[in-house]
Amino acid sequence: MTGSSAGLGGEPGRSSAPRAPKVVRTQSVLEQHGRDFTYHEPHLPHAVVYPESTAEVSLIVRFAADHDIPIVPFGVGSSLEGHIIPIKGGISLDMSRMNRIVEFRPNDFVVRVEPGVTRSQLNEAIQPLGLFFPVDPGADATLGGMAATNASGTNAVRYGAMRENVKGLEVVLADGRIVKTGGMAVKSSAGYNLTGMFVGSEGTLGIFTSITLKLHPIPESIVAARAVFPDIDAAGRAAVSIVGAVPIGRIELVDPLTIAAVNIYKGTHYEEKPTLFLEFSGSVLSVGRDIEIARELCEDEGCESLQMESDSKARAQLWEARHSAAMALMAMNPGKKMMTTDVCVPITELPGALRHARETMTRYGFEGSILGHVGDGNYHAGFTVDPDHLEDMERLEAVNSEIVRYALNRGGTCTGEHGLGLGKGKYLEQEFGSEAVVLMRQLKQTLDPMGILNPGKGVDFLNR
Amino acid sequence: MTGSSAGLGGEPGRSSAPRAPKVVRTQSVLEQHGRDFTYHEPHLPHAVVYPESTAEVSLIVRFAADHDIPIVPFGVGSSLEGHIIPIKGGISLDMSRMNRIVEFRPNDFVVRVEPGVTRSQLNEAIQPLGLFFPVDPGADATLGGMAATNASGTNAVRYGAMRENVKGLEVVLADGRIVKTGGMAVKSSAGYNLTGMFVGSEGTLGIFTSITLKLHPIPESIVAARAVFPDIDAAGRAAVSIVGAVPIGRIELVDPLTIAAVNIYKGTHYEEKPTLFLEFSGSVLSVGRDIEIARELCEDEGCESLQMESDSKARAQLWEARHSAAMALMAMNPGKKMMTTDVCVPITELPGALRHARETMTRYGFEGSILGHVGDGNYHAGFTVDPDHLEDMERLEAVNSEIVRYALNRGGTCTGEHGLGLGKGKYLEQEFGSEAVVLMRQLKQTLDPMGILNPGKGVDFLNR
Repeated sequence: MTGSSAGLGGEPGRSSAPRAPKVVRTQSVLEQHGRDFTYHEPHLPHAVVYPESTAEVSLIVRFAADHDIPIVPFGVGSSLEGHIIPIKGGISLDMSRMNRIVEFRPNDFVVRVEPGVTRSQLNEAIQPLGLFFPVDPGADATLGGMAATNASGTNAVRYGAMRENVKGLEVVLADGRIVKTGGMAVKSSAGYNLTGMFVGSEGTLGIFTSITLKLHPIPESIVAARAVFPDIDAAGRAAVSIVGAVPIGRIELVDPLTIAAVNIYKGTHYEEKPTLFLEFSGSVLSVGRDIEIARELCEDEGCESLQMESDSKARAQLWEARHSAAMALMAMNPGKKMMTTDVCVPITELPGALRHARETMTRYGFEGSILGHVGDGNYHAGFTVDPDHLEDMERLEAVNSEIVRYALNRGGTCTGEHGLGLGKGKYLEQEFGSEAVVLMRQLKQTLDPMGILNPGKGVDFLNR
Repeated sequence: MTGSSAGLGGEPGRSSAPRAPKVVRTQSVLEQHGRDFTYHEPHLPHAVVYPESTAEVSLIVRFAADHDIPIVPFGVGSSLEGHIIPIKGGISLDMSRMNRIVEFRPNDFVVRVEPGVTRSQLNEAIQPLGLFFPVDPGADATLGGMAATNASGTNAVRYGAMRENVKGLEVVLADGRIVKTGGMAVKSSAGYNLTGMFVGSEGTLGIFTSITLKLHPIPESIVAARAVFPDIDAAGRAAVSIVGAVPIGRIELVDPLTIAAVNIYKGTHYEEKPTLFLEFSGSVLSVGRDIEIARELCEDEGCESLQMESDSKARAQLWEARHSAAMALMAMNPGKKMMTTDVCVPITELPGALRHARETMTRYGFEGSILGHVGDGNYHAGFTVDPDHLEDMERLEAVNSEIVRYALNRGGTCTGEHGLGLGKGKYLEQEFGSEAVVLMRQLKQTLDPMGILNPGKGVDFLNR
């Protein structure tokens, strides 16, 4: 089947140039694999290993199992919850050389990729055939990392998160066994849904070596818009109304502080007020109608200006600005690290949740930003912090806890798309109750009895 | 939260009328719970138990675990693969008295129901608020049964199967523990996806006592259509083209034999030729445009007539006819039992798969019907058979096996929506390989070490 991948994504890891070493222990590479840009404490792996095939991953995992060595999968290191930090050392398994598009069936709307393919690499390859892969976390993450955290992003309101778009996996288990899950068919009721269990398992149940993804046709018409509001409440209410009324493509809320940071970072001149970034897509006819409905709903909430961008370059610039919000905040606060909440609430609870988040931040004396995927009820309160400043860290933890408690009390979740990682596992029992957590631990114990797969992350948070 | 359920679905199990007994052992009731209308051999339970709450289910399961008694959950008994037959006796757990709509949040597009609520009961309750639940297997099944088999139906091409529409569950495990999974938020990356693991587990991992479902707004405009083709190949090719070109609501293929049966059973006068039943939905504008595109694609394949029905009564009649196809076949063959294949293939493989199915049936001397959800690549070859006629049964098994092998060789699945039940477990290893099946058995062993939950079904097929 590899014949169909000709010219799609290339095979950089398999070139005939002098072969790069597969095991690296130089200090700079260890450091690069031992930290992310969040507040989580760095920790070096003992070695970085670069597998080039499923068989190699299986061999490495068997070696690790034989010697009781932890293994932490690594994509591009864009996790926001410390997933890739090898807190117990061991092997950082860098998947960047497994970056081939293995099988592409455009007319079936499916593609099978290796886990090191990034979302932009995939989209560049499939775009000429009128298809795209919608899941778009801010960073240009690998599809393996995105599947591991059940990532989503700005398109989830319309196309779902990774869970809705991963059709099947090849997974290397903790003892080196290779398991195939799912398939190429649109749906299946055959056996337990192993694919669904592995997606979002944060590297703690198995290592993904191949991922089958659902693709979507690029809509005929796409129009982006910016709607500026007098206050964040009004923007939140408008978002809820719009989501209920039209099949919106994207709907993102950005607060003034973040707009200001983006303006500096990207050289844009957006008004520094609460803003909804919107995208309408579909047929030319339906998009025109959807825009008119959204315009009325925005005006009902006192919208001060509504700017359209149908030109593809201007649209790309607008979404690039939105996607760079986290980097912009980091750039405004050099030397500091990022901490971000990630709660998701039922959408009608969103305006109240945004107000509560702002009040809580103010009460604790923080100037955090608020931005998020409000069409899903998912938003982020973002802060930069010096991890060595213990008092700041404690205050941040308190803000995070209050925001999470508010969401959980309203049927929400502690993490909409970032995953538990190192930071959110402590909320798991609050969210689901102790019996569910016991069951999750039983699954971990069944699949990884020695605890070598990404120890201390996610459900395994007690194992520090 | 029960306040919000006032007037929605009632509380028949909790009325103050003379209470119905909770344990029934009369012959007629045992028989009703010991067979379905398929070819699978009936087997009586020892008792039928009617729980009225989660606490009661937990007590019953604990009792069963203490005495090593099998438990088989029962909805309305509409399984097409023998799921509800207690092949080892024990308790048939009839969920019909747990039929309350527990919590309804129309503006969040979610509802939480007990497992005995049927899909039509739910839709009647939510329709006044402009919402509907799209998953529609032919029978008026319970939502518990539908979640257990990952059911889908004619709307899956647009709205997905149960897996895409179940947000959370309450599950009683094999030791009586009560586990909560998922929540009310649109998305979550918190912990292992227990919801996804339980949906489609066919009663073998736990008993569902509460189900949180995603709802959808009723589209502004809905138009149904019937397109008649000269042969089944042309109908299949037209289906594939339409699915690639417009966001079709429903697209169903029915063969002449089945149309003839429906005409007799429902008193309709549809032309007895290969026919696509279609449904377009969305805004008035987009539906009009979609119909024009579909009309052209149908004409390209030699469509002989294309009949529209925008009146809601005529539409209902058309879909009722389609939904009664299985019952119509049964009525044409009194005294016989049903056997149906359920493969699902990547959609471009569909025309070839339909041709292969027809050839295989002819080769083995069968006059089966072909109908299916062709927008998903899922179709059914249906036969009626006398289970006591061993030679017929053997020939049918051979047809089934050849159809499944054809699908699996092309990346398909042995069951798109019916589940493995008693009939399809034997194909599991062919589909996923032995390592995946070993892992599924490990999950079964972890969650139900005594094997009391629906023994012999699905992944547990070796335990007969």
